[in-house]
Amino acid sequence: MDVYEESLKLHKKHQGKLETTGIVQITSKQDLAIYYTPGVAEPSRQIAKDKTLSFDLTLRGRTIAVISDGSAVLGLGNIGAEAALPVMEGKSLLLKKFGGVDSFPLVIHVRTPEEIIHFVRDVVPTFAGILLEDIAAPKCFQIEEQLQDLGIPVFHDDQHGTAIVVSAALRNAAKVVGKPFESLNVVIVGAGAAGLAVARMLLGLNCAEDRCDRLPGSRSVSEVIVVDSKGALYSGRDGQNIYKQAVAGLSNKQRKSGPLEEVIKNADAVVGVSGPNTITKEMVASMADKAIVFAMANPIPEIMPDDAKEAGAFVIATGRSDFPNQINNVLAFPGIFKAVVKGRLKTITHEMKEAAVDAIANLVPNPTQESIIPDLFHPGLAEKISEAILKVK
Amino acid sequence: MDVYEESLKLHKKHQGKLETTGIVQITSKQDLAIYYTPGVAEPSRQIAKDKTLSFDLTLRGRTIAVISDGSAVLGLGNIGAEAALPVMEGKSLLLKKFGGVDSFPLVIHVRTPEEIIHFVRDVVPTFAGILLEDIAAPKCFQIEEQLQDLGIPVFHDDQHGTAIVVSAALRNAAKVVGKPFESLNVVIVGAGAAGLAVARMLLGLNCAEDRCDRLPGSRSVSEVIVVDSKGALYSGRDGQNIYKQAVAGLSNKQRKSGPLEEVIKNADAVVGVSGPNTITKEMVASMADKAIVFAMANPIPEIMPDDAKEAGAFVIATGRSDFPNQINNVLAFPGIFKAVVKGRLKTITHEMKEAAVDAIANLVPNPTQESIIPDLFHPGLAEKISEAILKVK
Repeated sequence: MDVYEESLKLHKKHQGKLETTGIVQITSKQDLAIYYTPGVAEPSRQIAKDKTLSFDLTLRGRTIAVISDGSAVLGLGNIGAEAALPVMEGKSLLLKKFGGVDSFPLVIHVRTPEEIIHFVRDVVPTFAGILLEDIAAPKCFQIEEQLQDLGIPVFHDDQHGTAIVVSAALRNAAKVVGKPFESLNVVIVGAGAAGLAVARMLLGLNCAEDRCDRLPGSRSVSEVIVVDSKGALYSGRDGQNIYKQAVAGLSNKQRKSGPLEEVIKNADAVVGVSGPNTITKEMVASMADKAIVFAMANPIPEIMPDDAKEAGAFVIATGRSDFPNQINNVLAFPGIFKAVVKGRLKTITHEMKEAAVDAIANLVPNPTQESIIPDLFHPGLAEKISEAILKVK
Repeated sequence: MDVYEESLKLHKKHQGKLETTGIVQITSKQDLAIYYTPGVAEPSRQIAKDKTLSFDLTLRGRTIAVISDGSAVLGLGNIGAEAALPVMEGKSLLLKKFGGVDSFPLVIHVRTPEEIIHFVRDVVPTFAGILLEDIAAPKCFQIEEQLQDLGIPVFHDDQHGTAIVVSAALRNAAKVVGKPFESLNVVIVGAGAAGLAVARMLLGLNCAEDRCDRLPGSRSVSEVIVVDSKGALYSGRDGQNIYKQAVAGLSNKQRKSGPLEEVIKNADAVVGVSGPNTITKEMVASMADKAIVFAMANPIPEIMPDDAKEAGAFVIATGRSDFPNQINNVLAFPGIFKAVVKGRLKTITHEMKEAAVDAIANLVPNPTQESIIPDLFHPGLAEKISEAILKVK
């Protein structure tokens, strides 16, 4: 039985993966009088006087919403809210397992960015933070930016979670191939949420809508070229939304044009955040010596690891659990949201994201070809990330 | 330490009452490959082909949303979303404890009925049913009515949960005082969500907006008079919203007017669903022999049980856990939602509500003054209600 059949069978057997359970026992009328009526009126009265007490007296203070409209699920595309639920339920499971953080998945029937923004604003009083997942670009950028004033963090994992783990992995991959991180020429395949966010982070850019600024003190690679279905992004190219334009203006300094097979030539690293089979063996073979290949599309990578190796790649990573070097957001988001609930964060700043990159990379002090990032089960992973973030709070 | 202090202390200690936990174990990369990536893509793909599979393959099939805007919380009024959360978290706790049903509380920042309707429609793909709680009248009527086409049930507990348990309790109270249920003259104090719903159910009415029809075959009492802050509702009275008008047109046949102290004279039963201390000892003393007094406001009843007894009441009930005869919605909603998830119900019909009344009342075959309704801890209570509902599905 393959992993897909097994997954289907077990999802059906358990009817999903997450349940809601009481922390307290209800075994007597006295318990009911305390936790329900009349007792429950007292925490309600206190919160009515001071809304911030909702963090102390209810699940709010330790619970995250995992929200998706199902418009860009895994590598499967716009498959809708219902079909996104197994993935969101999985995120909740992992938040608890790896971060010790409670959460609940909310998949929603909406179409426009404005509707998603409206929904998230409505639901704020229930949660300590919002994890946005699998929302298509470019609306994901607008949504996240317009939700930074909520008083609780809104974090689009496909952007920042991906950017954080890719950055950490690339720092250690650079060590393995013996090239300085700051010297790397990187091609990014895919200009969606993940692709643009990885580009921003590798270039040390802080962006809001159509404006990006280089952040002083951020570590950045030498050059980034982002490729979409029409080829390389460059300043002034046609068919670029404002988010692509903003990144194009501060990447691809030579304004190279053309398809992936052109611009990948002599690149030190390629980061695939697109879809299945978009990188060929020929492309990998045309890269610089000791090429770094991150093929992260799920469930089917841009190029299978064996093929990449045959074509000469030196360090290979995917997003999957069943190959070495799993560059997966689950390395980051449980620790990030552990910090959110522990530190009662109001936003997640660029400095916090950089701190998370450092924390993840530093857990592998001596990286090798098959170990550039910590294992998901690395003891204390989320705790380390959380501590690093809270230090720069 | 009184129950309020104890409640506050324990809510703070546990940071609420509910948590989200994994049903499945994640202890290896293989587990991750099955429950997360790449395996999770398979249930997602299957649901994308057939959305109803979301009930089988995710928590959706066994999970209810408990939704409130905090506009009418307990007897505390419009205290806001955050302050409603302890109560909603409590409802979720009780759904699990008594019904074995998973649920999640969602308290929302909204103002208009249209916004609540919009929110509920958005979130449908995540849940098997919607339990609306503590939403003020009259908007609660409009909201519930306009949400009957979702494909999953929407049940406003303050209306129907209350009506079901009051009806069951009143049937057995009638036995205790030796008067036929059908002969009772009942005064209802409060014309909000609960008051109007109790009136409808005691009169065997099926209502939609401004229209009510008598349902053939429903058991009904002899007469109902509903009293709001301006006195008795009667057909044609000023200051009645369309929901009050609809009930007024089929109750209070003699069109009695005047305040509660007038219309309560000679009543067989009074049902308080208003606020603290609205029923006086003098009022109870003016009722018919062997008066039935249900004083259900939470946390402080319309009249304290000792006072009602002193004034001559024969059967006394409250909504609280710390007095005999707790007429509380928690008797009904866990069993109702057990039926929702077991039977994958699309709506909850009047016949189902009647079946729930019968099931609850029949659990006390020989009612007494201090036992007109089953104890909350009655073994198999939710199961019995669920079975009764599924029989009339």
